[in-house]
Amino acid sequence: MKSIPRRKFIGQAALAAGAGVLASSFKTNLTMADKTFIHHVYFWLKNPGSVEDTDKLIAGLKKLSKVSTIASAHIGKPADTNREVIDRSYAVSWCLFFKNSTDQASYQTDPVHLKFIDECSSLWSKVVVYDSIDV
Amino acid sequence: MKSIPRRKFIGQAALAAGAGVLASSFKTNLTMADKTFIHHVYFWLKNPGSVEDTDKLIAGLKKLSKVSTIASAHIGKPADTNREVIDRSYAVSWCLFFKNSTDQASYQTDPVHLKFIDECSSLWSKVVVYDSIDV
Repeated sequence: MKSIPRRKFIGQAALAAGAGVLASSFKTNLTMADKTFIHHVYFWLKNPGSVEDTDKLIAGLKKLSKVSTIASAHIGKPADTNREVIDRSYAVSWCLFFKNSTDQASYQTDPVHLKFIDECSSLWSKVVVYDSIDV
Repeated sequence: MKSIPRRKFIGQAALAAGAGVLASSFKTNLTMADKTFIHHVYFWLKNPGSVEDTDKLIAGLKKLSKVSTIASAHIGKPADTNREVIDRSYAVSWCLFFKNSTDQASYQTDPVHLKFIDECSSLWSKVVVYDSIDV
């Protein structure tokens, strides 16, 4: 049991160092473990333009948004902006914020997520995912 | 001037209808004008992997984040997740939330944005933009 006080000390030192970083700077200097993780998914449907399939996917995503590790979720459709650099060919946007990468990893194997894939994956033909960590 | 009271009436009726929608449902039924607009930009650098150019771009985006119509801004780098559906080839992610599409349109022509493009566009080789409106 001798190691416990030492582990405690290390924990407190790390906490103090972390607090220093937090106090001295913009949120961009949080440690990697605490950085916001944005998981942004774009779905293309097997039946492009199908209102019924779009609605089914959105209904599935609304259920999926209940996963407890999700900090915030946004379900979107392409805006009416239309410039050369804009990709508006997808059907549904699914933008998730997680407190950190651990929470995102947990979401990937959450039973609610696996059920969503099982129930809805027949709807889409393509999925593109961009995962980013706040700098 | 006879049409003014009529226009007023229409305006109030529309407002009342909008309030009803707001009161009776989830935020997904906000009128189009009030829906959250997510403008997510991914940048690829002319010098892929250049730490200096990445830092320059991030510094430019930090200045750009001061545009007053931006509700929230996140600057990110690819996370270490790596599955087939994940595109992690970009250098920097720039995820903006706007209160509505009007604010996003204003951002596009904001002098701070134009200055950013002027100062930083030489850094990137490709930009992909996904604009979405909350359902």
